[in-house]
Amino acid sequence: MGIILVKTKREDNFSDWYQEVIQEAELADHSPVRGCMIVRPCGMGIWERMKQDLDARFRHLGHRNAYFPLFIPLSFFEKEAEHVEGFATECAVVTHHRIAADENGAFVPAGPLEEPLVVRPTSETMVGEAFSRWISSYRDLPLLINQWSNVVRWEMRTRMFLRTTEILWQEGHTAHATAEEADQHARTMLDTYTSFLKERVAIPVVAGEKTEHERFPGAVATYTMEALMQDGKALQVGTSHMLGTHFSKASKITFQTKEGKEEYVHTTSWGVTTRMVGAMIMMHGDDEGCIVPPGIAPDQVVILPLVHRAEDRDLIEQACHALAQDIAELQYQGEAVRVHVDRVAERRARGDQFWGWVKKGIPIRIEVGKRELDAGLLSVGRRDLPTSQREQMSKEELLHSLPLQLQEMHNVLYERALKRHQPQYLSSKEDLLSHFRQEGASWVLAYVRCTPEIERSLQEELGVTVRCIPWNVIPRNANFDHGQIEECACACASACIWTGEKGGALVLVGKGY
Amino acid sequence: MGIILVKTKREDNFSDWYQEVIQEAELADHSPVRGCMIVRPCGMGIWERMKQDLDARFRHLGHRNAYFPLFIPLSFFEKEAEHVEGFATECAVVTHHRIAADENGAFVPAGPLEEPLVVRPTSETMVGEAFSRWISSYRDLPLLINQWSNVVRWEMRTRMFLRTTEILWQEGHTAHATAEEADQHARTMLDTYTSFLKERVAIPVVAGEKTEHERFPGAVATYTMEALMQDGKALQVGTSHMLGTHFSKASKITFQTKEGKEEYVHTTSWGVTTRMVGAMIMMHGDDEGCIVPPGIAPDQVVILPLVHRAEDRDLIEQACHALAQDIAELQYQGEAVRVHVDRVAERRARGDQFWGWVKKGIPIRIEVGKRELDAGLLSVGRRDLPTSQREQMSKEELLHSLPLQLQEMHNVLYERALKRHQPQYLSSKEDLLSHFRQEGASWVLAYVRCTPEIERSLQEELGVTVRCIPWNVIPRNANFDHGQIEECACACASACIWTGEKGGALVLVGKGY
Repeated sequence: MGIILVKTKREDNFSDWYQEVIQEAELADHSPVRGCMIVRPCGMGIWERMKQDLDARFRHLGHRNAYFPLFIPLSFFEKEAEHVEGFATECAVVTHHRIAADENGAFVPAGPLEEPLVVRPTSETMVGEAFSRWISSYRDLPLLINQWSNVVRWEMRTRMFLRTTEILWQEGHTAHATAEEADQHARTMLDTYTSFLKERVAIPVVAGEKTEHERFPGAVATYTMEALMQDGKALQVGTSHMLGTHFSKASKITFQTKEGKEEYVHTTSWGVTTRMVGAMIMMHGDDEGCIVPPGIAPDQVVILPLVHRAEDRDLIEQACHALAQDIAELQYQGEAVRVHVDRVAERRARGDQFWGWVKKGIPIRIEVGKRELDAGLLSVGRRDLPTSQREQMSKEELLHSLPLQLQEMHNVLYERALKRHQPQYLSSKEDLLSHFRQEGASWVLAYVRCTPEIERSLQEELGVTVRCIPWNVIPRNANFDHGQIEECACACASACIWTGEKGGALVLVGKGY
Repeated sequence: MGIILVKTKREDNFSDWYQEVIQEAELADHSPVRGCMIVRPCGMGIWERMKQDLDARFRHLGHRNAYFPLFIPLSFFEKEAEHVEGFATECAVVTHHRIAADENGAFVPAGPLEEPLVVRPTSETMVGEAFSRWISSYRDLPLLINQWSNVVRWEMRTRMFLRTTEILWQEGHTAHATAEEADQHARTMLDTYTSFLKERVAIPVVAGEKTEHERFPGAVATYTMEALMQDGKALQVGTSHMLGTHFSKASKITFQTKEGKEEYVHTTSWGVTTRMVGAMIMMHGDDEGCIVPPGIAPDQVVILPLVHRAEDRDLIEQACHALAQDIAELQYQGEAVRVHVDRVAERRARGDQFWGWVKKGIPIRIEVGKRELDAGLLSVGRRDLPTSQREQMSKEELLHSLPLQLQEMHNVLYERALKRHQPQYLSSKEDLLSHFRQEGASWVLAYVRCTPEIERSLQEELGVTVRCIPWNVIPRNANFDHGQIEECACACASACIWTGEKGGALVLVGKGY
């Protein structure tokens, strides 16, 4: 039939499958600029749904959006030593402010700047400067700001949505009177992300703290959420940082307490990016393409008009639009159901049309042709079920069950993910070695002493990293004593599985992106 | 009382007044980067309302959002000769991809790029490259894409919201099968902008075409909307360009027609920016600060709790929140009314609190204190009326009249603006000279032969520019023969008011930003 399906199967080459799905589902496209992608309407629609939902959660917590400059003076980077070290090797630097033709007529940079500007990799230093002017009294605290923007990190190896040179993201920045409040806020924001991922994207995560070695440059603590992809690799989906007074000291952000004392504020920052779209693809997709969870699908329902004879066209189109109107009056997750009526395809394009929606992962497909109209039945397919499985139902049945179908699909996706997600607890070095020698081995829980040397050795010998020190995770081993986990959140006396030394903490270990 | 009001009056120094309003209303802030502003939450909230409304209008017309890279390879600029010429002198150029410490420990750019990258001043060339890959058949047309993003133009003289180095904007890009359809689309988008400005921002504009001299670099025709600020100066608020085949030839965007022929597509592009926030300030603001039209106000109503005795606090706060809940159930322009309850202020901060909301321009202020509660009356102020004029009304009266009050405020703002807006028709050089010798002289209609030389001479001698060749504007002179305007849209045989030559067109002439 000449229909282009996703050629690679997940188990054959997960990475190729991923790239193909992105192309076939029209989520993104390569651009002529190294490492920068073009987000196509289908991908942008998903990102916009994510933005909208998160933005409402942020506002509900009292955050307000602002916008800070794209450029940061080079000198700003020098304010926080760890910070500049963390970003120095991946900064795009603007050095000129015009272009001019050289003697051969080729365009070259001209008008050198007095001070070069760094294209922001993140905005802590710029926000800090503003906070130092906006905050003077305890009455100005907490200050809760968020920004939706683009940032640039010059990555050497890029992959669409997961690691790109330009990144679309959200960065929250807050200032608090006490360290306790700031730390609590950083944790609350991670909780906000995890609730969103669970409720809207059907993605379960392990939340926890990064080891010292993996902290954000300049942070006191970095909280992270890690999700397990279908190939067994972990993906860091978002982070929240307790910055303590590192940035407030660098930018001199002080406030007068109620008692009239001058003190430094305690700051946090937290962000998620279009990487969440990549996580969605790798978490839910199947060999037929992308599967978009209903909670973030730009279109939750697509109606395909099937016209075999020209004289039926008007009738069928009318029926499709009437159906769409009825569907748009339904509610799912507190909003009107989003429905799209496709255009009538020519005969030879019909297969492409059908499979196009499958590849794009639209939750519900409804086919409406003359036969369906005559029989008073619609043909309904749900993306998480086999494609060949289409249910015949009356319009009334459909309208009655549609929101439930969407919720059920969400639940199915979440349950599937959750099954893979739960880590095993391993208690010996031998088990660890044999586990990670398997192809596609998933993450595990184990006691590890987290030092840069030990983490490097794990990376070199097993190709794994310590993903996080989890806050709350129950291993799948039935015999695991849950008391051990409770204990690990405090100072752990357990032996390191890798070195046998004292001081192991129960951590999540796995291969990662 | 120590309250900081806007110090400068509009008639004393409009430009200083403008800057002060931006500071006092907390709309934006200067940043340490030359020409880049920080958009503060109050300003961002207005821009976000504008975005949301326009985005819905674009979608309704079939546009879908996408995202193209921030960087454009230098070589892309060379594809369209006029285009590169138009932007060459104002481009930020990235030449390095990391920073490193020099021998003195100071950070300097390192890792030179093989090909420098221009930070996009606009995305025609990048979008063109993608369109050339996405479009192959007439079935792919029209292709209607929009992008919300930041662009950079290295302006020498900047002014907050009006002309900044980094600009937040929207750029639409479309491709069509015929020139007629593309031209119609470019005009439709200008109409979409003008409806939005009228319905939501209470801004009347003159729509028309730019003269050849003022066209977008690479356009066949540039359509513009011009708004008259309170100081008599015109502001170009947005433009829409018919690009013909200039960019499709440069990027080789072709399609196969139904008949199997290979043809170039015809493209358009159109954009509006945060400049609209500047237009709003200069169009509606008064000597007490900003006035935000209800259609784009992030908060349309603010409730101020007035607590004189600590024992009344709970009662008053409860009453405020109950009132807010009732107000949030009301509808204005098809959406729930947006209401904010302010926090209880300490006695000495109460004046600042009240005047803060006045300066920010919130449409409706409601004061609730013990006295009001005892009397069963609320004290209500509307921002377009004198601040001293507060109406006492019952809660029922308020809830009944609130949406009407918002609509009435919108109408008052629009009518005020419309009164100033209508141009005079001038028919002699003497009239023109004496008109523009007046301080704050507003725009006029006159017949002018639009050549670069004549436009330059007008600029040099009178400090005015041809704002546009208007599509449809009625001068305020009662005796004006409307037939003359109809005629001018075609080839005009009228004499130029400035040179006496034949070939004058009826144009809008004025001082501009």
